[in-house]
Amino acid sequence: MKRVIVEKKILIANEEFAAKNRDLLAGLKIPCLNVISSPGSGKTTLLARTIRELKGKIRIGVIEGDIQTDIDAQRIKAAGAPAIQINTEGACHLTAVQVSQAIEKLPIKDLDLVFVENVGNLVCPSAFDLGETAKVAVLSVPEGDDKPSKYPTIFARAKALLINKIDLLSGVDFNMEKAKADVLKLNKDIKIFPVSAKTGEGLQNWYDWLVETTKI
Amino acid sequence: MKRVIVEKKILIANEEFAAKNRDLLAGLKIPCLNVISSPGSGKTTLLARTIRELKGKIRIGVIEGDIQTDIDAQRIKAAGAPAIQINTEGACHLTAVQVSQAIEKLPIKDLDLVFVENVGNLVCPSAFDLGETAKVAVLSVPEGDDKPSKYPTIFARAKALLINKIDLLSGVDFNMEKAKADVLKLNKDIKIFPVSAKTGEGLQNWYDWLVETTKI
Repeated sequence: MKRVIVEKKILIANEEFAAKNRDLLAGLKIPCLNVISSPGSGKTTLLARTIRELKGKIRIGVIEGDIQTDIDAQRIKAAGAPAIQINTEGACHLTAVQVSQAIEKLPIKDLDLVFVENVGNLVCPSAFDLGETAKVAVLSVPEGDDKPSKYPTIFARAKALLINKIDLLSGVDFNMEKAKADVLKLNKDIKIFPVSAKTGEGLQNWYDWLVETTKI
Repeated sequence: MKRVIVEKKILIANEEFAAKNRDLLAGLKIPCLNVISSPGSGKTTLLARTIRELKGKIRIGVIEGDIQTDIDAQRIKAAGAPAIQINTEGACHLTAVQVSQAIEKLPIKDLDLVFVENVGNLVCPSAFDLGETAKVAVLSVPEGDDKPSKYPTIFARAKALLINKIDLLSGVDFNMEKAKADVLKLNKDIKIFPVSAKTGEGLQNWYDWLVETTKI
């Protein structure tokens, strides 16, 4: 029964640490956005550009979740923000315990906003509370406009959705209006930002939303 | 302890049913390929085109795994092959039990090859044995050439890798030689097929490999 006991402890610890993270960040008035998407939707490119273009306006820190490597944390540091890399060593999502440990390593009192870039996975991370203020989903246009219907949970739970890689729209079959309509059917209050983290198109609306979000 | 007992039963059932599936398919000399990738890598487009272009050469059946909707099974049927849709209702991977039930619904004795299109997820499905003959990974170039390093398990375990959407290579930063080298470091025996399921480029090598695979 060892495996079972360990698993129960992990679940209890996740709830406890999610509450602890939420209380700590609320006390400091620092919002935390849990960014969730498929692998390769462009989360790191988006965050690196956001850090560069909001420099002097919002002080951002990033907690990077990956199964292996510290490639993403290096990219965030190169963009000028503190980044803590978590390697899950095979696990398909971050836990609140891992995020709690990472928050301790961030210069948290010098920040206005914390991003958690979750493991690339459109399914499992949406079920685990990390103590975030809100979830943010990213869908890239090469993935197809049927993804909200096929993987509804994250689109139903996110407060904002970035539809990324719109620079590739002419080369792929992606109906933007269908994608938006399907998402709004799941979640009528979600903010949707069609963007290209590569060219910068559409990012100003996302930045405006982030500035609003940090005024908590 | 109810949750725990249920989970133990599921794990035991998975192993039992994986063995049962493997024995059944081996007895009929029908290989089964478990296709695993991120959401939106183009698995269904690839399978639909493969079915159309191998018509008269290999009789293919498909087991479709999705969290919700039967969009993919409809696309496979439109391509002219029998397809059984499994909806996991939130679960992040297929189980051997589900595949066993789907095999019973396929006209299995009239087939030369069965594809299982797993739930779009680069992490969890690689850990669950479905009784397949081999795993096949799909990576699409917009996802980026760093994915084999960041999500190594499926690339280490697959017998073949399709690097799909090469028609988009000019619009994205994807170093094909780096991707191939990183995959071969994990798995020196893997067959790598750069393809475009959209334009058809490179697919003949994949078809030749499938024809060889069905000669078991």
